[in-house]
Amino acid sequence: MSLLIKDDWKIIQEGFSPAENRFFESIMSSGNGRMGLRGNHEEDYSGDTLKGTYISGVYYPDKTKVGWWKNGYPEYFAKVLNAIDFIGIEVRINEEKLDLANCKFSDYRRELDMKESVLRRSFTYIDSKGSKYDIKTERFISYADSDLAAIRYSITSLDDDAELNLLPFLNGDVRNEDANYQEKFWEYISSCATDFASYLHMKTLKTNFNVSAAFTWNIIGADVLEKKAVFLKNGEFVGTQIKTKIYKGKTITLEKYIAVTSDRYYNAGGISKIAAGKARESLEIGYDKLFDAHKEKWANIWSMGDITISGDVAAQQGIRFNIYQLNCTYSGEDPRLNIGPKGFTGEKYGGSTYWDTEAYCFYFYLGTKEPKIARSLLEYRYNHLEKAKENAAKLGMRGALYPMVTMNGEECHNEWEITFEEIHRNCAITYAVKIYTEYTNDESYLIQKGIDVLVETSRYWASRVNYNPVKNVYMILGVTGPNEYENNVNNNWYTNRMVKWSLQYTVDTLDMMSKNHEALYNEMIKRLGLSLDEIATFKDISGRMYLPEDKELGVFLQQDGFLDKELTPVADLGPSDLPINQNWSWDRILRSCYIKQADVLQGLWFLNDLYTKEEKIRNYDFYEPLTVHESSLSPCVHSILAAEIGREEKAYEFYLRTARLDLDNYNNDTDDGLHITSMAGTWMSIVNGFGGMRIKDGKLCLAPFKPKSWEKYSFCLVFRGRILKITVCETGVTIDLEKGQPLDITLFSDNVTLQEGINV
Amino acid sequence: MSLLIKDDWKIIQEGFSPAENRFFESIMSSGNGRMGLRGNHEEDYSGDTLKGTYISGVYYPDKTKVGWWKNGYPEYFAKVLNAIDFIGIEVRINEEKLDLANCKFSDYRRELDMKESVLRRSFTYIDSKGSKYDIKTERFISYADSDLAAIRYSITSLDDDAELNLLPFLNGDVRNEDANYQEKFWEYISSCATDFASYLHMKTLKTNFNVSAAFTWNIIGADVLEKKAVFLKNGEFVGTQIKTKIYKGKTITLEKYIAVTSDRYYNAGGISKIAAGKARESLEIGYDKLFDAHKEKWANIWSMGDITISGDVAAQQGIRFNIYQLNCTYSGEDPRLNIGPKGFTGEKYGGSTYWDTEAYCFYFYLGTKEPKIARSLLEYRYNHLEKAKENAAKLGMRGALYPMVTMNGEECHNEWEITFEEIHRNCAITYAVKIYTEYTNDESYLIQKGIDVLVETSRYWASRVNYNPVKNVYMILGVTGPNEYENNVNNNWYTNRMVKWSLQYTVDTLDMMSKNHEALYNEMIKRLGLSLDEIATFKDISGRMYLPEDKELGVFLQQDGFLDKELTPVADLGPSDLPINQNWSWDRILRSCYIKQADVLQGLWFLNDLYTKEEKIRNYDFYEPLTVHESSLSPCVHSILAAEIGREEKAYEFYLRTARLDLDNYNNDTDDGLHITSMAGTWMSIVNGFGGMRIKDGKLCLAPFKPKSWEKYSFCLVFRGRILKITVCETGVTIDLEKGQPLDITLFSDNVTLQEGINV
Repeated sequence: MSLLIKDDWKIIQEGFSPAENRFFESIMSSGNGRMGLRGNHEEDYSGDTLKGTYISGVYYPDKTKVGWWKNGYPEYFAKVLNAIDFIGIEVRINEEKLDLANCKFSDYRRELDMKESVLRRSFTYIDSKGSKYDIKTERFISYADSDLAAIRYSITSLDDDAELNLLPFLNGDVRNEDANYQEKFWEYISSCATDFASYLHMKTLKTNFNVSAAFTWNIIGADVLEKKAVFLKNGEFVGTQIKTKIYKGKTITLEKYIAVTSDRYYNAGGISKIAAGKARESLEIGYDKLFDAHKEKWANIWSMGDITISGDVAAQQGIRFNIYQLNCTYSGEDPRLNIGPKGFTGEKYGGSTYWDTEAYCFYFYLGTKEPKIARSLLEYRYNHLEKAKENAAKLGMRGALYPMVTMNGEECHNEWEITFEEIHRNCAITYAVKIYTEYTNDESYLIQKGIDVLVETSRYWASRVNYNPVKNVYMILGVTGPNEYENNVNNNWYTNRMVKWSLQYTVDTLDMMSKNHEALYNEMIKRLGLSLDEIATFKDISGRMYLPEDKELGVFLQQDGFLDKELTPVADLGPSDLPINQNWSWDRILRSCYIKQADVLQGLWFLNDLYTKEEKIRNYDFYEPLTVHESSLSPCVHSILAAEIGREEKAYEFYLRTARLDLDNYNNDTDDGLHITSMAGTWMSIVNGFGGMRIKDGKLCLAPFKPKSWEKYSFCLVFRGRILKITVCETGVTIDLEKGQPLDITLFSDNVTLQEGINV
Repeated sequence: MSLLIKDDWKIIQEGFSPAENRFFESIMSSGNGRMGLRGNHEEDYSGDTLKGTYISGVYYPDKTKVGWWKNGYPEYFAKVLNAIDFIGIEVRINEEKLDLANCKFSDYRRELDMKESVLRRSFTYIDSKGSKYDIKTERFISYADSDLAAIRYSITSLDDDAELNLLPFLNGDVRNEDANYQEKFWEYISSCATDFASYLHMKTLKTNFNVSAAFTWNIIGADVLEKKAVFLKNGEFVGTQIKTKIYKGKTITLEKYIAVTSDRYYNAGGISKIAAGKARESLEIGYDKLFDAHKEKWANIWSMGDITISGDVAAQQGIRFNIYQLNCTYSGEDPRLNIGPKGFTGEKYGGSTYWDTEAYCFYFYLGTKEPKIARSLLEYRYNHLEKAKENAAKLGMRGALYPMVTMNGEECHNEWEITFEEIHRNCAITYAVKIYTEYTNDESYLIQKGIDVLVETSRYWASRVNYNPVKNVYMILGVTGPNEYENNVNNNWYTNRMVKWSLQYTVDTLDMMSKNHEALYNEMIKRLGLSLDEIATFKDISGRMYLPEDKELGVFLQQDGFLDKELTPVADLGPSDLPINQNWSWDRILRSCYIKQADVLQGLWFLNDLYTKEEKIRNYDFYEPLTVHESSLSPCVHSILAAEIGREEKAYEFYLRTARLDLDNYNNDTDDGLHITSMAGTWMSIVNGFGGMRIKDGKLCLAPFKPKSWEKYSFCLVFRGRILKITVCETGVTIDLEKGQPLDITLFSDNVTLQEGINV
């Protein structure tokens, strides 16, 4: 049995159990936003493992599998690719291969230090004669130079002198476990192995992404008796065979300096040369200096985005793990990248972009980074606008419909009830424009680029609604709302409400631009061919959008006919029913009243300031009891709303549901990788939920409370060039302006002026 | 170019065009209800062809392909199998292989004689030296002995003496074109080849169906110079190589006598022996005698079920083609068999049983055959009752839910919106019990077996409806009606109406049985564990079933919210829109008002006597203009209703849409096989539509009219031990009781007594 040890800064595994290896590989994942690794062993491991080396932006359009084709279905599902395995080091001691699936060992410990972002491992290996060797490994993926990684692999002989054979290598013969047709996605381009360095250049099929990995090595504590280039599998496996002797009581350390380059950043023809050069340079700089630069970057990350919790080490470990993994996944330096639901920790869900980015992750990057990072996420969608227009045209509509799942802007999901009908995603994208502009006070994106997104999505809505002459309203038929336990419904309140909002936001922005930015406005009008009639139509639709509600109950109706369902609370279901997605057939789920994740309530969170507390209470009390929270994205929204309506214990309860989702393997699926996007929801539960953070009338508002079981907690906010640290304890709230100009904020209902050096 | 020649009794192809080969192969298909063949060439053909040899009831559960799994999805899709190719005869003349894709030829003619059910082919082959040979082939699949088929293959040398090599063979190395994973579905068991006979025994993987084919041969008009057993492909290809000489002006005929057996009818271990014995016996009996017995059966079929049309040869050919193919597909002798939508003419739709059987085909077999044939179709469902109960249980329901598509009683379709939601199929099955009982006046099936089907499907409905306390009605949420251009709707009128009827029919039947068949009733109550409470529930649900309607418009509403759609008639669509299933994305189809096939109107046809003419007119006028008829099953229902409400020209127009659907390749998909089940709809258009045939109060009613462009038409009806021939011409209607006891019927509104020998 392996133990997962609770610790403020580290994820620690003590003991090794093959059955839990995938789980620990997942939670020991790390990355630098440009590449990432699961916590795989460096040396050979013939037991059950999910090998995972992922290079950001390098994907493969795997042909989709569907039984029955329907017009408009995407033909492929873009998958994140398991790439060249560059961590590998084959170890043989006295010709016995080190492989934890096939040898004796003790004192296994694997730990991920989140503060410094380094993965360490140690164990004592016992060979067939009973001789013992201490093995210690350490590796990091540099946050200072995104192309680099380095490994230190140390062996101490405890009992004997022995012959040691080490083979650091690169292996391009890798596959995805979930390939639809069991195909290999890579082809070999070139490679080179010498006795001091190697490189390997592979290219993806179809998408033609070129990736090269190179390494150099260094040995400390021994003389190299023999070294030899290794060139196997027609060049897809290259490395150096190093023979040395290890003496009793002595330690030998192999350092492997790796550089990974791709034609996403360099000219394809030169990537191997660049990688080899960077690997050589790393060797010259040395491990410690490289590591120092890396650590500094992480120190900076934590200084801007840490959350501390006193009196609950599990909670502290949980929230830091979430913040850590979000930083591993996305650094914001490249607007072509985004946040896959599993980040660099697994293959599932194809590693693509969902509406999760805008609806759940956006606030995290906005609140813990310089604005340019969140802006990168906006640019991502702006750059896909043409593809979104093609997507709408393919469905017979005008304007732009963003895909539900994408890598390069094209739709690559293949359930019709999702791709064709879960169209509310367009609104999350315009909503992110709004919160970016509001939070940063920077309207440059909005007026330069965002406006195009607003207008084109509005055009889509104008063609997608239908006017009902009998009721004199606009309707939106045949949609799937955020609650995916309903399909093909009419007038989903969330969708209609967000569309109404989005059209109004477009109209308001156009109005503002025409007044304040006349030149940009005129240029845009021309660029988009926008007419006054069109703007009037947007306004008309927004004004007459149909919003189903039941006046008697005082609630908004999730969709037309919702009250015809049998309304029995989740509490009445038996244990054999839950989770319903595992125990009920799909039709039964669909016609039941049960809600997968916040739907009406998602709208009340997004359009928070448009609804009264009483409205929120009535809808929360109506819908929450019907909600099964079978999406990891559900609890955070409920936590925030519960906090807002004064249900602090409920808010904390919902927070707990996702805070340690992966660490505690709640859903029994951590093996496949981590729930990256829901981690941002956990952050929101604390900052927007417990902390009550909002922007109202352009001003930062806070209204924190402290969960009972915590002694104290604090969170940072990067806000308009400042760093704020908010600390909440039994006796009250302290706000520390750690950096930046004085700032007026609203604390609860009071105006407070923050100044550096003075706590309030 | 090939020409399709119009003829009263024959389907004639003149000329050969490789591009049209699949089309002609489809329309030249024939069968005997136990096996069937596409019109493939006997000699090798290396051009584009869909090889098709199908053995009834022998299927393979191909693993389904779906992108995203949902609870309750079937894991396989049962496919009709392309089986041992037994028609093959390799022909070489002077060592040149005869292959119409690779040689010169002229005067190609292929004709299917429907009267005698024989496929004939002739052409003149021109060898590389320019010498000519007339080739004539003829084959039939015996309707007298379902295991047998025979071929006559004649060659006449016109110019030269030549060496002739003939190789009649059996080939088990066959595949389905539409195998999901390109797998072979058969494994080899054993085979034997001698110089006078061969057999080949193959077994399906997974389902373990054993099939054996054997043949013997005979040559006429020449001496055999050499004969040699051929055993290739590890025994999967067996036959006899026959060498002979052909002299200028002489004809040589090879006769191939084939028997095909399977363990559906014989002990698996003995099937090859039986097949070989039957092949040998056939050789002894001889081609002509076998053919005579076969012809006699077909003469009988035509005497009971022919329709004649004077003054329109295309119409005559069309309707006979439909009647012919329906007889090839299903003979009713085996209640384990059913009517696949493509019969024995192609692989598409898996060859399984749909609700088409009861909703569209049932009347045809009822009206043209002895009652036991239609009863076989009822027994098929009765025998699957246990599986239907398992299916309901799997979906968390009580009672029985029949599968939407099946081979052996298990669901094998895999679109959730169909399998989970198109539940109205249960009602077509109970409805067939009703019309069987009514038409034949034989209640034995109903009280012995049908009642179990009624009770178990009623139990399903009782668990599937939900009670709405606010409206005090029962509702059925989340269904797909017959109109598959809607999915997951609430309260589909057709479904709710048929469920209401079905529950009432169950209650009435129970009531009748308790009065008239007390012993059977008591036994059944015990067998099914039926309580009075349950019966009361059935009655209550039937009585309070919610039926959406719009009183102002005077129409029944296809489903809740139907009037919220944009109601624009099909006539307003442009040519680039139609068919919408090829030009519109699925979401657009779903939210549009367009109807794929009769839905509300299907209910008005089934429950014909419960609605007034005015109600039918209002609903017809409301729904028909919104209907795109993109299912081949749509026009017949509209034709019947149009006829009933006095729209005779419309009725004829709808009739024309399907009468020659395959012959004229309207949908451009005849290549894949024929639309067998819709052929029965065409028959209904004439008999129930033009002929106005109904059963009212236990009495046969007719109210025929004559389409203007026809001089005269007649149809037969097998009715309660009688054969009636109804002839309709300009001057009126003649009804001829061809066989049986006197009968009172209603003609228009008059009572008429029919007597043999006296026309009325």
